[in-house]
Amino acid sequence: MGYRILTIEDIPKFLGSLEEMRNIFSDFNCLEVVEVGDGNLNYVYLIKNSKNPQETVVLKQAVPYLRVVGESWPLKRERMTIEIMALQKEIELCPEHVPEVYYGSHEMSLVIMENLSSHKVLRGEIIQGKIFRNFAEHITTFMAEVLFKTSDLYLDHQTKKEMVSKYINYDLCKITEDFVFTTPYEKHETNVYNQELTEEDLNFIQQDRDLKIAVAEMKYKFMNNAESLLHGDLHIGSIMVNENETYVIDPEFSFYGPMGFDVGAVIGNLLMSYFSHEYRQKLLGREPYVYRKWLLDTIESVWIKFAEKFETLWIEEQLSNPQLAWNYPEGEQHFKVLRESFIARLFSDTVGFAACKMMRRILGLAKVADIAEIEDLQERARIERMTLKLGKIMVIERDSIKDIGEVLNLAKELSPLV
Amino acid sequence: MGYRILTIEDIPKFLGSLEEMRNIFSDFNCLEVVEVGDGNLNYVYLIKNSKNPQETVVLKQAVPYLRVVGESWPLKRERMTIEIMALQKEIELCPEHVPEVYYGSHEMSLVIMENLSSHKVLRGEIIQGKIFRNFAEHITTFMAEVLFKTSDLYLDHQTKKEMVSKYINYDLCKITEDFVFTTPYEKHETNVYNQELTEEDLNFIQQDRDLKIAVAEMKYKFMNNAESLLHGDLHIGSIMVNENETYVIDPEFSFYGPMGFDVGAVIGNLLMSYFSHEYRQKLLGREPYVYRKWLLDTIESVWIKFAEKFETLWIEEQLSNPQLAWNYPEGEQHFKVLRESFIARLFSDTVGFAACKMMRRILGLAKVADIAEIEDLQERARIERMTLKLGKIMVIERDSIKDIGEVLNLAKELSPLV
Repeated sequence: MGYRILTIEDIPKFLGSLEEMRNIFSDFNCLEVVEVGDGNLNYVYLIKNSKNPQETVVLKQAVPYLRVVGESWPLKRERMTIEIMALQKEIELCPEHVPEVYYGSHEMSLVIMENLSSHKVLRGEIIQGKIFRNFAEHITTFMAEVLFKTSDLYLDHQTKKEMVSKYINYDLCKITEDFVFTTPYEKHETNVYNQELTEEDLNFIQQDRDLKIAVAEMKYKFMNNAESLLHGDLHIGSIMVNENETYVIDPEFSFYGPMGFDVGAVIGNLLMSYFSHEYRQKLLGREPYVYRKWLLDTIESVWIKFAEKFETLWIEEQLSNPQLAWNYPEGEQHFKVLRESFIARLFSDTVGFAACKMMRRILGLAKVADIAEIEDLQERARIERMTLKLGKIMVIERDSIKDIGEVLNLAKELSPLV
Repeated sequence: MGYRILTIEDIPKFLGSLEEMRNIFSDFNCLEVVEVGDGNLNYVYLIKNSKNPQETVVLKQAVPYLRVVGESWPLKRERMTIEIMALQKEIELCPEHVPEVYYGSHEMSLVIMENLSSHKVLRGEIIQGKIFRNFAEHITTFMAEVLFKTSDLYLDHQTKKEMVSKYINYDLCKITEDFVFTTPYEKHETNVYNQELTEEDLNFIQQDRDLKIAVAEMKYKFMNNAESLLHGDLHIGSIMVNENETYVIDPEFSFYGPMGFDVGAVIGNLLMSYFSHEYRQKLLGREPYVYRKWLLDTIESVWIKFAEKFETLWIEEQLSNPQLAWNYPEGEQHFKVLRESFIARLFSDTVGFAACKMMRRILGLAKVADIAEIEDLQERARIERMTLKLGKIMVIERDSIKDIGEVLNLAKELSPLV
């Protein structure tokens, strides 16, 4: 079976041909197929048995170009190979927060998985001002499990190195290298600016010495530090939630990179949500305090719970697999200081990467709806400026910002929590 | 032709069968074959046409075990594949300091190369107190060319990532991870200590909090920072010299790692030579000042020339391939500050790795002859203690040591240059 692009018409027959679908569908004659992807990179279909709508799957297929642009922007469909492998590894490490995969085909560049029919994309829910009390708990479990257990702190030397090689992701890393770490910080033709931003606003980022150096350092770290298997695109549009559950989807950007890039993606996106809700809560006719307080509390919990869980996994690993290095009277205490030092460095990375993820969403090609869909362009620009200011401070000062509370204080200085 | 271990008797016939040897040898009937390897890992043979001794090559073959131990210590012979690929890449980037390769066979795990018959191993020459005025110039050209031109500062994103994958070196990285970064710092059974060292001397390293943390951080960096194609074992036993020329040999430990590991290997080894010659020069019946001054000057030059050449290559690359990022009035000045910041970080890595390379040669399994062959065990212990003290300060203080002069001052405090 060679590669071919499936169509809505093809899909029922294709599913019927798969052994793996016989446990899912009782009948292949009444399948309803609807295309649902946001359509940037891939085709995504929702499939239901119309006679029994609980029989349902999602099918995602990669095409050999950037779908949103078309065949003129080739993008190897082998990205789906990475996505399938990353899903499988994430399921192995943290099944409660990853959709079940029923079938994956590298040849067809497609994956068939659980339809999260009672869940919605977190970004959309946050834009509408919904609160998810378990989100920080869930996402930190996911990140701690995957980041710790794919690192040298847990894997043996050979397995880790094999993983680094297996998950090399040329094309999608290149997209991040360009659109997160390069073009937003220069006068690049692909950038898209709110017309209310002035040349001064742009140069505040694009021609500032300390910022340019800090971003170059973060880019170099992104390209060189093969610490853990990252999701690689862990913004709040890659997370699906309901009141009780949280799922991480779309790991096509997965590769071995610096842990702080994933943690920073979550935190950076929530900081933008915080700024956006200075305006959005009023638009929703609410007093902004409660919702924005939840956002800040969530950001704080994301860092604190992640750090705690990560450290707990490390302690457990040392208990079950004691290293001779710490086998002396004060060794346990020294090992504790090592963990603290490691996590402090990881915090610095997290702050730096969060900052890059924020600034690029204002000046680069790809926006976040939280901010970019604010119709009042002056209000939007006001929020964009605070995002840029916070991003700039965070990336430059990442090594001296001592804790997540300090990040939140900076955010509150720019946009008071009232 | 499958893999088989060549013997002295086999070699003439084997060479005669190779097309590539017909340009080298006019006659295969009078080949003299002598085994010359130091015998740790591989078999190394020197082959000469006895009728015309200028017709000569070196043949190096890997066996599927650690030769010094025997078949009980398996070591995949695929390390030769890495060595051949690394030699080829080094020759491409810096032919003047790498022996010519005439023939390489991954299948036979062997390489046939230039016989550096008028050159000697630098360590032996330094032990005998010989001066090489061009050494710093040469080795820094080699390191700057290879480290810069295999990094993301020079290569495109895809080539770099392909190289990372291609040069993954499971077995030999594991040896470094264990014997440079782990066992010397714990009570490990493989360690070998000068009996004159006390428990206090050992615990000064093996149970010191800040040192243990610093070494763990360097190990993590070694395992995770895939910056450049390293030689991976660039001590002064991997360098051959005469008065005019310098050659780097034996890159079987080659892999993508942190640049500072190679630069630190050279500097750490020369620092040990400096300490050893406090004793050795007297043994040679000389006043120690002149030779030890040359060693310190060489260490200083190694860092300064390396940093200059590395920066020059970076400037040249920016001139021939200008990045839009720096295209604004102050951009050139900002780019300069980035380079300085990058090189300062590389200096910190260099100091930290040099320190690990020093301490492990005192407490670990593998020694350096400079120190370990000092027969007076009390004198040896005195020199070992200074090495440990300097290593400890260097690795702990690596981020605050401001320049190479400060490293030399520390060395002179421990062992005055008189």
